[in-house]
Amino acid sequence: MLLRLRSPLSGPDLDRFQGLARERGYDVHVLDRRGLLVELVRASGRTPLGEPGDRVAFEDLACVAAVLDSADAPERHERTPERADTVVRVGAAAFGGAQVALIAGPCAVEEEGLLIEIARAVRAAGATVLRGGAYKPRTSPYSFQGLGARGLEFLARARAETGLAIVTEVLDPRDVERVAAVADLLQVGARSMTNGALLSEVAASRKPVLLKRGVAATVREFLLAAEHVLARGNERVILCERGVRGFDKVTRNILDVGTVAHLKRVTHLPVIVDPSHAAGRRELVLPLAKAGLAAGADGLMVEVHPRPAEARSDAAQAVSPADFAEIARHARELVRLDGRRLALPAADGHVAPTPVPEHRP
Amino acid sequence: MLLRLRSPLSGPDLDRFQGLARERGYDVHVLDRRGLLVELVRASGRTPLGEPGDRVAFEDLACVAAVLDSADAPERHERTPERADTVVRVGAAAFGGAQVALIAGPCAVEEEGLLIEIARAVRAAGATVLRGGAYKPRTSPYSFQGLGARGLEFLARARAETGLAIVTEVLDPRDVERVAAVADLLQVGARSMTNGALLSEVAASRKPVLLKRGVAATVREFLLAAEHVLARGNERVILCERGVRGFDKVTRNILDVGTVAHLKRVTHLPVIVDPSHAAGRRELVLPLAKAGLAAGADGLMVEVHPRPAEARSDAAQAVSPADFAEIARHARELVRLDGRRLALPAADGHVAPTPVPEHRP
Amino acid sequence: MLLRLRSPLSGPDLDRFQGLARERGYDVHVLDRRGLLVELVRASGRTPLGEPGDRVAFEDLACVAAVLDSADAPERHERTPERADTVVRVGAAAFGGAQVALIAGPCAVEEEGLLIEIARAVRAAGATVLRGGAYKPRTSPYSFQGLGARGLEFLARARAETGLAIVTEVLDPRDVERVAAVADLLQVGARSMTNGALLSEVAASRKPVLLKRGVAATVREFLLAAEHVLARGNERVILCERGVRGFDKVTRNILDVGTVAHLKRVTHLPVIVDPSHAAGRRELVLPLAKAGLAAGADGLMVEVHPRPAEARSDAAQAVSPADFAEIARHARELVRLDGRRLALPAADGHVAPTPVPEHRP
Amino acid sequence: MLLRLRSPLSGPDLDRFQGLARERGYDVHVLDRRGLLVELVRASGRTPLGEPGDRVAFEDLACVAAVLDSADAPERHERTPERADTVVRVGAAAFGGAQVALIAGPCAVEEEGLLIEIARAVRAAGATVLRGGAYKPRTSPYSFQGLGARGLEFLARARAETGLAIVTEVLDPRDVERVAAVADLLQVGARSMTNGALLSEVAASRKPVLLKRGVAATVREFLLAAEHVLARGNERVILCERGVRGFDKVTRNILDVGTVAHLKRVTHLPVIVDPSHAAGRRELVLPLAKAGLAAGADGLMVEVHPRPAEARSDAAQAVSPADFAEIARHARELVRLDGRRLALPAADGHVAPTPVPEHRP
Repeated sequence: MLLRLRSPLSGPDLDRFQGLARERGYDVHVLDRRGLLVELVRASGRTPLGEPGDRVAFEDLACVAAVLDSADAPERHERTPERADTVVRVGAAAFGGAQVALIAGPCAVEEEGLLIEIARAVRAAGATVLRGGAYKPRTSPYSFQGLGARGLEFLARARAETGLAIVTEVLDPRDVERVAAVADLLQVGARSMTNGALLSEVAASRKPVLLKRGVAATVREFLLAAEHVLARGNERVILCERGVRGFDKVTRNILDVGTVAHLKRVTHLPVIVDPSHAAGRRELVLPLAKAGLAAGADGLMVEVHPRPAEARSDAAQAVSPADFAEIARHARELVRLDGRRLALPAADGHVAPTPVPEHRP
Repeated sequence: MLLRLRSPLSGPDLDRFQGLARERGYDVHVLDRRGLLVELVRASGRTPLGEPGDRVAFEDLACVAAVLDSADAPERHERTPERADTVVRVGAAAFGGAQVALIAGPCAVEEEGLLIEIARAVRAAGATVLRGGAYKPRTSPYSFQGLGARGLEFLARARAETGLAIVTEVLDPRDVERVAAVADLLQVGARSMTNGALLSEVAASRKPVLLKRGVAATVREFLLAAEHVLARGNERVILCERGVRGFDKVTRNILDVGTVAHLKRVTHLPVIVDPSHAAGRRELVLPLAKAGLAAGADGLMVEVHPRPAEARSDAAQAVSPADFAEIARHARELVRLDGRRLALPAADGHVAPTPVPEHRP
Repeated sequence: MLLRLRSPLSGPDLDRFQGLARERGYDVHVLDRRGLLVELVRASGRTPLGEPGDRVAFEDLACVAAVLDSADAPERHERTPERADTVVRVGAAAFGGAQVALIAGPCAVEEEGLLIEIARAVRAAGATVLRGGAYKPRTSPYSFQGLGARGLEFLARARAETGLAIVTEVLDPRDVERVAAVADLLQVGARSMTNGALLSEVAASRKPVLLKRGVAATVREFLLAAEHVLARGNERVILCERGVRGFDKVTRNILDVGTVAHLKRVTHLPVIVDPSHAAGRRELVLPLAKAGLAAGADGLMVEVHPRPAEARSDAAQAVSPADFAEIARHARELVRLDGRRLALPAADGHVAPTPVPEHRP
Repeated sequence: MLLRLRSPLSGPDLDRFQGLARERGYDVHVLDRRGLLVELVRASGRTPLGEPGDRVAFEDLACVAAVLDSADAPERHERTPERADTVVRVGAAAFGGAQVALIAGPCAVEEEGLLIEIARAVRAAGATVLRGGAYKPRTSPYSFQGLGARGLEFLARARAETGLAIVTEVLDPRDVERVAAVADLLQVGARSMTNGALLSEVAASRKPVLLKRGVAATVREFLLAAEHVLARGNERVILCERGVRGFDKVTRNILDVGTVAHLKRVTHLPVIVDPSHAAGRRELVLPLAKAGLAAGADGLMVEVHPRPAEARSDAAQAVSPADFAEIARHARELVRLDGRRLALPAADGHVAPTPVPEHRP
């Protein structure tokens, strides 16, 4: 690990720095004449500690200006030769490696009959996971906040009916147990990406986690949010790019396909895209879905509603079941070009049990 | 209220729209020939409902493209002729109207002795509220997360010693009761601005709330986050601008003084600035503090540490007590030019009881 | 055209507004009771004027707050039922409609031999246009500014050798004639997108124009920059999205694929992407190229260099000829999925004459 | 100068690197074991070359990943112990050091009588420089582009009448001579900040230059744009911060006061702010003007119009002469707090000759 220290460097600064290095099993090599560039090397004859927090521990020291190269202190999210692709399985779906899958459903759960109608339609079109918000994060206190526990019941019913796995958002650490009793995949939304208490609880639930990128989160912040889950021993995290906030409003957000491609190179975790929130308008959902997969995404999450004008939230960006079938058709063709495979709904329509974690290789 | 409806407009859309108008006591006037521009007017002979959620209720309808003018449906945060300036009092400090006050202290609470040393120093320099994080929101799970309950004890001790009011951040809705038992002012940090569960609990605590703007939050989102607290009957909210994320890293964030000036015009709530997080480097804290006050801010929140190099978080942006005294001196002169007054620490150093809410006029 | 006027509206404001409406052949219909919402309708019994500047003429009035709907005043770049897809042909390449083509070459023209080596390699891989900067816009006055006129000579030689059409940037209105004597397609770079004097001169040259989006240009600004060329009678404009400036530096810029998809819906002009400048790192060029085409782009512009480490500018983002061949292979497969066709280099390697403009239908 | 080289480092890379070091008079010290960290030190026994382009020359090498510390290779804009504050004098105005001055006038020059009316009003209120656009950069080709040469005549007349110095924008390198014949200060607008051909010509004119920051320009890009002028021997450059593009539209742009404070620390050039373009609305101009000066700005440029509703451009942000007088009064008080002095119009109203450059100390 190569570090730049801040000038001027006091005696106590240096003591603190060297103490931490000793504690973590590093030798300190000073590289330049002012003593501000140092290289930390694993002390010879010692087993490497392999503690993933080493990089952050040094970054946090007041006298460290920057970590220039952190190759010696991998964090748990990092792609390494030994850890190339984590495949996260959720029901019949699998995300990562050569596996691609589609998540679809309404923004919010509204009525049981409607939910089951949508579930059947998206299953028929190729989705393997049903999305639907029971607890909705809303900008205004006067907006519809979701059906809560009743919404969870409807989701459970939809799973029983269609065999689709369920992903739904959890907002409050006190709700995690209740939501995890129904959901096969727990969604942490963009507005909650920095909610450490929530990340802690979803990690503890042992369920797979769908973590959405904050609307202005850097890649490092996004990966460290995932690290909050991984560090607590839950390694089934799917990252979701859903658009970053830009300066123009012709699209709701800017789908950051460069970050999708970059993430596939630096982390072993699967990465999916949410073209609906990025687009904000249904006519842009298909091209953004295609762009996301072409950039390397391991899946899509799409808002679908049979009569979007009646939806109680995000109506402008929901596509019809027929449009979703078109998206699924394009997805199938696109991933085939790369030698990847789109997961199909289980043939019999029964609930597939959520399997134990799998990591590749 | 003037609304633009989405084309094409179906029969069910129109029914839903007119139903909501009736329910809320509005008559619908269609303005253009395509029937897409409508004006909602209070039904004659009715007491105005005065429900602040009217605007959002219509915004949430799928068939409403935009609310062009919301003058008829004020929300609780809105400045009106009857509600010009809310003054929030916290101990000897008062924020709003002609009152300006200074908050200062370390980023994180680390040791009792050090905290009291800092508290005395900032009190001597003119601060009336002591800041200090017991629970720290951290980007990485490997960073120092604060002392938690022990930190709260130290803060209580510092208050007893110096008479300064205490502001400290709360991160988890389950901690609100515990933190509110010590804090005179509850801080909701930038990363928690969209945490509805937390906003709900701090509202319920009846304590004044310091709400920081999210790093990429629009003004509307910021005000609606405050509305989450106001709508639950807690009207003592102080807004804090702390810099928005920009494209250049020479400053940590961009202190958005235009938004400070704009907020003072559209809301009756007090607005302060945090020059430390905006600057990210101590040499810029003074000019940004001055800029914030000159733009109309009702107070400052400044990170102070006697030996910044030893701080366990945000060391680069903490100023020394001597620098803070300089900031306080400039603050005093600047606000005097505007006919405003900087709150002074209570003469005797005893704990001033947190008073009941006051609203002006 | 539906307009919102600013309140308060004075007598002279109204006179000015009505005068302009009369002058442009519109009747004014006032829609709301305050007289602030007005609809402009073509005066009955008159031939529609069809002047594209109508929208802007009203936007520019001090008393006009916003043009809410401009359907009656199309500008020249707008897609209409009569003007669905402009196909711009440059040598063997065609951009737009079902036609896709690849532009490739070095960032800057450096040596004749090297340029011809690259030209042959990219031609073999499937490029139909050779890029290469003779005049380089540089952030620093101390950077390599390009070979200038000698670079143009080398480009002419490369065209003679390979039959590839040439695109090269022009920076100074005084150079347009000289550059247009060699280039088949004149590039206006992102830093020049707002350079009206330059846009004027390239329009006058009658050559096709490749217009890159400014690094923080809105879609409306981008389209109005194109309108500067179209308004002067040159309708062969290709738009190029090359990434917008974001808040994170893991990619050089954010390739805005949502805007590509949006542009394809609102303008008849062809749109290509430059994955090299968006990525800033060669390993991201392929996924971004694929994402751009999947979003609907009509072509790519890629920086290629056989020994990138020797390039005098933008070395980190240049791909090798072998990598470019891989990009071309993916491009071919991707556009075939959409029923589109990738242009191939002319069989004989001779210079194809630049054809006259073609507009579809 | 401390540099990080890119890995892998080839033989030719190293040759090229060492050749440049030799050529510029540096010895190369390799600091780490991989040979990727190198320090360049002035060769002993040699006169330092003092060439300001050294930093960029190395940055431009393909094998150089980053310049970590450039202390040895100052560029001309850099503040050094020997070069603390450049004072640029324009007529009775002086910018920099302890000198502050106000520029005011209409966005565009429209009529002679009106211009002289405004000139007299802003002079009476305390402006020492009159602004007014004869050539206007416009987003749309259909907008009013300014009066051109006739506008210049009106400006010359206004100077003769009032003794105010004149600043006006030049857009086209071919117009520099004509504009410089009238203007005392040549404005390069935000959209032209990257227009190298124009920067070259204004440098050659020997007139002082007012350089506005591009709407999304980094500080480094802004300073290098100034360097384009300085490197050609014209050292009278005033930097102008006018707001950067943000994600919210409640203000037109975000006035970046942190960058103002930062610039005052890193460059010796004077820095002013344009609160009008940042605000976009007249009610925010006063608070932003105060914030800019409080952050350390050496002056203001304000749009003033006696009847803003009649202005042909940027009407919403122009303030009245009375409001400008209020701004000037606040400016006077604010800068006095810092021991600075606001320039006053010359007593007799005659044209003060533009003096020769002055540099401090």
